Amino acid sequence: MTQKQKAERGEVTPQMIKVAKKEDLKEEVILQGLREGTIVIPKNNRHKISNLCGIGKGLSIKVNANIGTSLDYKDLDEEVEKLEVAVKSGADTVMDLSTGGNLDTVRRLLIKKSSIPLGTVPIYQAAIEAKEKYGVITKMKEEEIFEVIERQAKDGVDFVTVHCGVTKGALECLKKERRSTGIVSRGGAILACWMLKNEKENPLYENFEQLLKIAQKYDLTLSLGDGLRPGSLADATDRPQIEELIVLGGLVERARAAGVQVMVEGPGHIPLDQIETNVRIEKEICKGAPFYVLGPLVTDIAAGYDHITGAIGGALAGMYGADFLCYVTPSEHLGLPDKDDVREGVIATKIAAHSADLTRGIKSSQQWDKKMGEARGRLNWERQLKLSLAPEKAKKYRKERKSKFSDVCSMCGEYCAMKMMEDI
Amino acid sequence: MTQKQKAERGEVTPQMIKVAKKEDLKEEVILQGLREGTIVIPKNNRHKISNLCGIGKGLSIKVNANIGTSLDYKDLDEEVEKLEVAVKSGADTVMDLSTGGNLDTVRRLLIKKSSIPLGTVPIYQAAIEAKEKYGVITKMKEEEIFEVIERQAKDGVDFVTVHCGVTKGALECLKKERRSTGIVSRGGAILACWMLKNEKENPLYENFEQLLKIAQKYDLTLSLGDGLRPGSLADATDRPQIEELIVLGGLVERARAAGVQVMVEGPGHIPLDQIETNVRIEKEICKGAPFYVLGPLVTDIAAGYDHITGAIGGALAGMYGADFLCYVTPSEHLGLPDKDDVREGVIATKIAAHSADLTRGIKSSQQWDKKMGEARGRLNWERQLKLSLAPEKAKKYRKERKSKFSDVCSMCGEYCAMKMMEDI
Repeated sequence: MTQKQKAERGEVTPQMIKVAKKEDLKEEVILQGLREGTIVIPKNNRHKISNLCGIGKGLSIKVNANIGTSLDYKDLDEEVEKLEVAVKSGADTVMDLSTGGNLDTVRRLLIKKSSIPLGTVPIYQAAIEAKEKYGVITKMKEEEIFEVIERQAKDGVDFVTVHCGVTKGALECLKKERRSTGIVSRGGAILACWMLKNEKENPLYENFEQLLKIAQKYDLTLSLGDGLRPGSLADATDRPQIEELIVLGGLVERARAAGVQVMVEGPGHIPLDQIETNVRIEKEICKGAPFYVLGPLVTDIAAGYDHITGAIGGALAGMYGADFLCYVTPSEHLGLPDKDDVREGVIATKIAAHSADLTRGIKSSQQWDKKMGEARGRLNWERQLKLSLAPEKAKKYRKERKSKFSDVCSMCGEYCAMKMMEDI
Repeated sequence: MTQKQKAERGEVTPQMIKVAKKEDLKEEVILQGLREGTIVIPKNNRHKISNLCGIGKGLSIKVNANIGTSLDYKDLDEEVEKLEVAVKSGADTVMDLSTGGNLDTVRRLLIKKSSIPLGTVPIYQAAIEAKEKYGVITKMKEEEIFEVIERQAKDGVDFVTVHCGVTKGALECLKKERRSTGIVSRGGAILACWMLKNEKENPLYENFEQLLKIAQKYDLTLSLGDGLRPGSLADATDRPQIEELIVLGGLVERARAAGVQVMVEGPGHIPLDQIETNVRIEKEICKGAPFYVLGPLVTDIAAGYDHITGAIGGALAGMYGADFLCYVTPSEHLGLPDKDDVREGVIATKIAAHSADLTRGIKSSQQWDKKMGEARGRLNWERQLKLSLAPEKAKKYRKERKSKFSDVCSMCGEYCAMKMMEDI
């Protein structure tokens, strides 16, 4: 049985207890969230996770870090290192998006090494194997897609992105739209190419029941991907995007009815003043399903610094109700992230999540800031550094640029406002 | 005559023409903004500025970079380098906040070298000279404060932060409040210490007319400082902060009546969900005076990464109407910024300003994103790099991590969504 099915029967599981403890909430709150589908606990029943988490309404916002090989970078050790950096920097989940090397080997290693929930996008592997087998992605067989999903689920993957909403209807809608950046989702593009070439409906949509059966068996959480998400601000909140969301809303209800945990993915590239709308429309159309956003990036022009544009969008999305933020790293749009990018991406996204948590009534987050404010007011440096979100960098600065004159910082020296007020 | 006085007489100045051109607006819009006081053009009539700017309603958001020596770092060359880095990274103005070395020498050099408007906080120098002369700041004479302001204005300083709102009444209000971080403004603290020790009213408030006379003479723009701004989220939007703002609102009207250009400074540390309120209350109480915010920082816990917390707050403040963002660097709360911090601080703040500009109807900003979206959609890398806000970093990533397989990036390689869609 899935966590959701157990919740429906009123059974409080050890996982729910862990999440309740972590969030400082009553177990019943978690149970009710799972029952209603506003909370998910991504955890494959074959995967031992020492540090699991809940995602959704009333909970602190969670941060995901994407790692994984590409054709250009296939080093296994490097991926394990990225996983470790992500966990150490505070990621709540990771996704293995590998597309280079032996994908089964990479995934199995990462699942084994991960102390936090791990997600994948199985269509990548299905496409890559089709390419190897038939020479082209579009010759991929429908059953091969489901075979890969089940193979990954069997390995212990906790959640999968499945682009079930890229339907014929949504693609029709896309054709009528003059987009700047067309389809920018890899999974969405794979399915769209397949559908156009084979003149068939999306198998993940048409055979959604088959997907639900796999999900039930392993308690695999479905993350309904947004294959038609905007890839530029010009394309934000357009008809194809919302058309796909409507499809996903229907699938959320079917997944819930089958006792399957489900969340919904969102954009992408959105101007600041459309973020509230994007969150509210998801919450309405998808009946409160946890919302998992990528960024969102609030401008297209900052390649090299997209962890910052993503943090701006993520903070705002979180304040309005997004539950799960996928990080964006400084290398986004330019290349595969290395471990430094992973660290910077996680930290920027944690800042966004935490800032939004402060407005969502998350008590532990509020206490954290309160303590830091007090430590700062007392010029208690040891405590300030200890309370830092990223203590290593803070300590480095403090060490290198401590004032020689007194126990203040070198910015103000003896003209420190708090020091002056203290002295008087 | 000041720019404002000329605007009141209907005289379009070369400065107004330059600003109108830069903003792609009609000259009358700039003239009307100056007349009403919703726009300022910080430019001392003794300072030649090759790249001046307007700040306020209807204009793109401007970014300020604070530079300057401290007791620990007095190197003149380093400050000139920081100025150059700030300008190169896109700062619209700089402030010289020096507190170490020969302050007149530093300031005169920076004014000479600066192609953009330069601001200062004269009370720092007044306090430091009092300390040198009398051994303690609090023995500073009232006339010495005004003497320093005039000396700096004579040198060509374009705008000055003056903490006129730290009145006896505001300090009374502060005493009743149990703040975590008391006063965190250096200028505010200097004045508060002086007032408490000497049991006198704030000279900048009491002799505001004298300040206005200096401002008139040099067309010095006044930036009414927020000496009681919150230094932690716990202190945000509290009674002392708003009490001071009310005082500033009154002074805005007096400055305008005297034909003096004036803007108002704001916090500081504010939770995400109080930013809108902070902007709206300033716009109401200060009758649409340009709002100059420091950050705002949306959490206290991210020392070492406060350029990111500031960018989140700045973007939101800008969307709601803030006109001028003071950067925060990664070294904030930890030490004096070096030139790398200056660059990172300016870029993060530019991202915030630009993201907000997109929502303020700034056409050139919207065009910029549109072009980038199109270049990305066409996989036109040369154009993408050229259109980048920070091309150097983007080029570095692209060079180091270009895919070996095709003209895509190494993140997706041949599984690039846009490439796949293009091929089909």
